Amino acid sequence: MHSDVPWEVWSRERQQRVEENLARTLADEPGRLGEAMRYSVLGGGKRVRPLLAYAAGEVAGADPARVDAPAASVELIHAYSLVHDDLPAMDDDTLRRGKPTCHVAFGEAVALLAGDALQARAFGVLAGSGLPGAAEACALLAGAAGATGMAGGQDIDLGATGRTLALSELTTMHRMKTGALIAAAVQLGARSGRPLAASQTTALDLYASAAGLAFQVVDDLLDVEGSAASLGKTAGKDEACGKPTFVSLLGLDEARCHAATLRAQAHDALAPFGNRARRLHELVDWIVSRDR
Amino acid sequence: MHSDVPWEVWSRERQQRVEENLARTLADEPGRLGEAMRYSVLGGGKRVRPLLAYAAGEVAGADPARVDAPAASVELIHAYSLVHDDLPAMDDDTLRRGKPTCHVAFGEAVALLAGDALQARAFGVLAGSGLPGAAEACALLAGAAGATGMAGGQDIDLGATGRTLALSELTTMHRMKTGALIAAAVQLGARSGRPLAASQTTALDLYASAAGLAFQVVDDLLDVEGSAASLGKTAGKDEACGKPTFVSLLGLDEARCHAATLRAQAHDALAPFGNRARRLHELVDWIVSRDR
Repeated sequence: MHSDVPWEVWSRERQQRVEENLARTLADEPGRLGEAMRYSVLGGGKRVRPLLAYAAGEVAGADPARVDAPAASVELIHAYSLVHDDLPAMDDDTLRRGKPTCHVAFGEAVALLAGDALQARAFGVLAGSGLPGAAEACALLAGAAGATGMAGGQDIDLGATGRTLALSELTTMHRMKTGALIAAAVQLGARSGRPLAASQTTALDLYASAAGLAFQVVDDLLDVEGSAASLGKTAGKDEACGKPTFVSLLGLDEARCHAATLRAQAHDALAPFGNRARRLHELVDWIVSRDR
Repeated sequence: MHSDVPWEVWSRERQQRVEENLARTLADEPGRLGEAMRYSVLGGGKRVRPLLAYAAGEVAGADPARVDAPAASVELIHAYSLVHDDLPAMDDDTLRRGKPTCHVAFGEAVALLAGDALQARAFGVLAGSGLPGAAEACALLAGAAGATGMAGGQDIDLGATGRTLALSELTTMHRMKTGALIAAAVQLGARSGRPLAASQTTALDLYASAAGLAFQVVDDLLDVEGSAASLGKTAGKDEACGKPTFVSLLGLDEARCHAATLRAQAHDALAPFGNRARRLHELVDWIVSRDR
């Protein structure tokens, strides 16, 4: 894959790679549980986190083959979190990626177990990759997924429904809920190649932090402006549930402006890398301009 | 700790060690989610899986300090599975270890997240241990926890309610549901010390398989013969739910006989190890003679 192919070609090729890799990874999961796992993971999704891993891998000169396991592992964590998030005890959603949610299709108990098994599989893929530093990678992923990361952010989110948050509180919540796993995707991708200097790792963290927040701001915008048909999930859900969002806090115009500022911050963070960061640069553009 | 101390002293010392280690591991988990995690893990439980890890470690001459992380990780996986198992969508239990279950105390959404975060923490502890072979250990734990192990067994269990299973089906279900994690506890403990010969690893697998099934048969017996006061959980639940058990299939007398046979098989498997397997030998005795 030449580095001068357009973004659309690069990203489509990587998405196909992820899709095939995830399909292989889940092919042997047995029974009805295996079906529910494949149903929840395959055939949909923007694969933002795997794309971030591959794009960060390019910064460190990593062969895509070495990014496959980290890319699959972050997507499996993301997919499990969606399955659990959609459960009646959480967001009680019935539509995801244009299909009935896992518990609608398989029942609540199987959906609960499918999420659990997907999380285990995520660590299994990463730990079993045979790559150097696999244990450290697993520890990093665990930190991003657990109470100090994604799960902790979801807990704060639950407690925030119906309340008005300050921008700083909303930002902290999203830094944990979606930002931690996005940062892990970037870090794991970057660790798949040549060792980076500490200043470069910091630059990538800054990028991930801005890109992750931009992703969330755009998510909030799309929830207001999008339709279920384009989103593949229920639109207008945040407001109906009394969830604090960047739009409810800032208004539409200022939220759009905030997304643009975060994109610029993400671009700035990439300056030290020059053209090696091309895909990360394009990726945050795509995150901000997407319509689903 | 001298090798000639009585079982009661050895096991109590190890249980305290696990308790302190788990408390340290979970001390910094933030917020209400952290509370729910500590509530679900600390101050109760027989710690059978950690004891198996330490006992297997002795077979390989492992210093207990090297078994701490594996021991904590299997207990965290076990604890998360109990939290999710107790949810209304699964077994809908209100009493566990003599206390209200996690979702009764914290609500369903927090209990769901607490289970999720405990699973992540389990892999974090093991991956972050700095021990050689940590990645392989994580891969082993992931296999035992996921769709081919514990979660898969729980799915089969769900599908079996109200049906009559053959003894072989019931055995397969339990080999996955509880046996896989018990086997992982033994394997992870044994890997913490000197490398074992393949024949020794096979012998430990045979031991774990027999001890794991014995544990389940006794669980089924206690559900019929025990009281909530001694069990710390609802008694008579299996029959009320139409769950197939070793007692429902074999009757009380034959189930007791089956447990004794499995104990003898476990003992036989330990023959090659001599006195180094003393704690594993005592452990299966304890598993079979316990009253909770």
